[in-house]
Amino acid sequence: MQQRGVTSDVYDVGSATNIKFHDGMVPREAKEKLMNQRGVVIWFTGLSGSGKSTVACTLEHALAALGKVTVLLDGDNVRHGLNSNLGFTAEDREENIRRIGEVSKLFAESGVITLTSFISPYKTDRAKVRARMEKDDFMEVFMRIPIEICEERDPKGLYKAARAGKIKNFTGIDDPYEEPENPEITLDAKDKDGKMASAEDMAAEIIAYLDKHGYLKAP
Amino acid sequence: MQQRGVTSDVYDVGSATNIKFHDGMVPREAKEKLMNQRGVVIWFTGLSGSGKSTVACTLEHALAALGKVTVLLDGDNVRHGLNSNLGFTAEDREENIRRIGEVSKLFAESGVITLTSFISPYKTDRAKVRARMEKDDFMEVFMRIPIEICEERDPKGLYKAARAGKIKNFTGIDDPYEEPENPEITLDAKDKDGKMASAEDMAAEIIAYLDKHGYLKAP
Repeated sequence: MQQRGVTSDVYDVGSATNIKFHDGMVPREAKEKLMNQRGVVIWFTGLSGSGKSTVACTLEHALAALGKVTVLLDGDNVRHGLNSNLGFTAEDREENIRRIGEVSKLFAESGVITLTSFISPYKTDRAKVRARMEKDDFMEVFMRIPIEICEERDPKGLYKAARAGKIKNFTGIDDPYEEPENPEITLDAKDKDGKMASAEDMAAEIIAYLDKHGYLKAP
Repeated sequence: MQQRGVTSDVYDVGSATNIKFHDGMVPREAKEKLMNQRGVVIWFTGLSGSGKSTVACTLEHALAALGKVTVLLDGDNVRHGLNSNLGFTAEDREENIRRIGEVSKLFAESGVITLTSFISPYKTDRAKVRARMEKDDFMEVFMRIPIEICEERDPKGLYKAARAGKIKNFTGIDDPYEEPENPEITLDAKDKDGKMASAEDMAAEIIAYLDKHGYLKAP
């Protein structure tokens, strides 16, 4: 059983690849070809309760069903890990977004379709993230949901707490949300006919955009 | 040409996937199945000049040839980005390794085979990174190359500068390198017959380990 190459298909393949010396990383394009996709950051921004995470999760599953390699960065996997040493001061909030941007960049440059789901309320923070990337590596998805709807949903009871003064500097209440001026995609609560858009509708719109702009195949 | 579904294969596939609402991320296992591999962090550690980056690059190319999805984190893509606001104080060096560990964890949990190439001289820093991960998600590759060989190579002239006192706290000269006690893989400068091991030999050894432990196929 120790005779590798006899017992293991993979090792056979490994031998067959004839490992060669390399002094540089595997180029991004080779990775994108392997995965048949283009690396990109899909940056969701919008108020608490606007549906960022729901749409991002729905989108991620749709991409997975298409055989695409993805990552979804959100508060759960970032705040408790990479950014666990950051608080909520203005400085720390800026650093929070900066680090998320840098990690997204690493993923996108590895060819991964990278979804981020953070309120990211300030224009300058988002602009700095965008400025760090190649033009086609970053797209902003603005969840343009009126605060009344978000507050009515209030899935985590945060608006209620903010209105009661138990949370300070809450985006949309006593801290501003600065709308993107030129987001690649804007998702509205209702479609042209006044029908409420579902998470599935919104994810489909992003899929169509990705397809149209060539992200769902190798460059 | 605007009739999506007519002009685009991918959009057809998109429609066919019948996008469904999802409230959680795509599970790691689904990603690993898609890529036919298991996410893992391959953490290279060793002196400057020990060949970490050369072996990591050679390994990354060998994995790519096997159709595996990888990322290689090193000083170039981390120090100028995510960790650009860190200096070289003891505190910053610790935070440097901590952040690299957290980013590696995000990649591994996305199913990516993640290679890191940093001196990472302190046991406690490496132990903290390991402690943050699932047991099978982390493996240490110790480049056990004698400092005499590293110093003779001195590819960046750093040992020379350190000996001349132009660089302070240089690992191996006036700052300690703490060897790993139980690395998953130890790579020596010479093989049993006294022949110098090449980067290709070393990469092949890691490939064999990955294969034997099931990382090169879905769990």
